[in-house]
Amino acid sequence: MTNELAEPLQLLVDEFCRLPGIGRKSARRLAFHVLRGTEEDARRMAEAIVQVRERMSHCEVCFQFTDRQPCPVCADPARDRGLICVVQEPGDIFPIERAGGYRGLYHVLMGALSPLKGVGPESLRLAELLARLDQGEDGDEVREVILATNPDVEGEATAAYTLRLLKPKGIRVTRIGFGLPVGGSLEYADEVTMARALEGRREI
Amino acid sequence: MTNELAEPLQLLVDEFCRLPGIGRKSARRLAFHVLRGTEEDARRMAEAIVQVRERMSHCEVCFQFTDRQPCPVCADPARDRGLICVVQEPGDIFPIERAGGYRGLYHVLMGALSPLKGVGPESLRLAELLARLDQGEDGDEVREVILATNPDVEGEATAAYTLRLLKPKGIRVTRIGFGLPVGGSLEYADEVTMARALEGRREI
Repeated sequence: MTNELAEPLQLLVDEFCRLPGIGRKSARRLAFHVLRGTEEDARRMAEAIVQVRERMSHCEVCFQFTDRQPCPVCADPARDRGLICVVQEPGDIFPIERAGGYRGLYHVLMGALSPLKGVGPESLRLAELLARLDQGEDGDEVREVILATNPDVEGEATAAYTLRLLKPKGIRVTRIGFGLPVGGSLEYADEVTMARALEGRREI
Repeated sequence: MTNELAEPLQLLVDEFCRLPGIGRKSARRLAFHVLRGTEEDARRMAEAIVQVRERMSHCEVCFQFTDRQPCPVCADPARDRGLICVVQEPGDIFPIERAGGYRGLYHVLMGALSPLKGVGPESLRLAELLARLDQGEDGDEVREVILATNPDVEGEATAAYTLRLLKPKGIRVTRIGFGLPVGGSLEYADEVTMARALEGRREI
C-alpha cells in the first residue's frame, strides 16, 4: 500500500482519467466523491452510463444522437425542410439549438477531414448528405445547406471539400459567420456568438 | 426537443453534474464522450463505479477506505504503532503517504466540527480515537498524536477540540506545520509542502 490506492479505487480513478479534461487529481477527487456517496447514488450513475449507450443511437437521417427514429428534429413537421445545417459532431447541434433562431434540419458528418489522423472523405457521412439532397426532404426541395463545421484547419478543409461536392447541385451553400473565435471549438460557443454566427452566414 | 437533450443523455448529464467541480458544460462534454465511446468502455466505467462502493469499506481501526480488514496500513508490521496521524477525510491520507516520510498509523475523524453544518463532536470518530489510545496499538504505547486536520476554521476547531480530549492522557500532541497555505484544502497539497508540514510539526 502506502503510495498505492486499493484496487477498486484505483480502477475507478483510471476510468475517470479517460474522460476528457479530467487529470489524475480530479479523477481521484471524483472517485472519493463516489465512495463517500450512497450505494444508491453509485448504482444510479452506473446505470445512467450503461443506459446512455444502450438507449441512444444515431438518427438514420441526420446522424445526431437520439433515443427515437427518426430523431425529434427530423420528425418535427414545423421544421423548415428546405434548410440543412451540416456539423461535424452530434454535440455541435446543441449550441445551435440553444441559440434558438434556427428552424431547419441538421446533418452530422461524424468527423472532419484530417490527413494526419487518416480521416478521408469516405469516413464522413457525405454520401448520405448528397442522398438527402437528391431525394429532397419529404418531397420538399432543399434550398440551402449551411456549413457549420469548426473554424479550425480541419473544419475549414471539410467545409471546402463539402462545398465542392455541393456546388454542381445548384443549391445555395453558406458558411456560418465568423462570430466564432477562430481556432476554438463549436461545442463551447456561447449563445450570443452562436446566434451571430448563424445570422452572419454568407454564400461561398 | 430543440433545446432539450434526449432523456438518457440528460439523465447522464444530471449524474455527472453531481460530481464535485463538474458544471453543466463539462458534464455534457463527459456524457458525449461516453456516447462516442464503445459499449464496452461504458460498461467498464459503470462496473468500476458499482465495484468501488461494493468492495470498499472503512477500515475498522482507522476508518480509511479499504478493500481489506484491517487496511494495509494498519496491518503493516513495519509501521510505527506509537504514532497516529489524525485526518478529517479518508482522501487526506493520500497526500501524506505520497510525501513519503511518514511511517506511523492514521485515524480518520470522518469530518470536522462545524456548528453551521450541524456537525458536533459526537458525529466524529473521536471516541474510537480515545479507545485506540487507551488500549494501545497491539500492546505498544501511542507516544504521539499528529493533528493533520485542514488549516481552515473547521479544521482548526477540530484540532483544538481533539487536543482538549487528548491532553489529560499525557500523550504528546502535535499539529502539522504550516507549510500548507491557510484556507486551502489538504487534499490538493503538493508533495514538498506536505513533507515540510510534517517535518515542521510542533507541540500544542
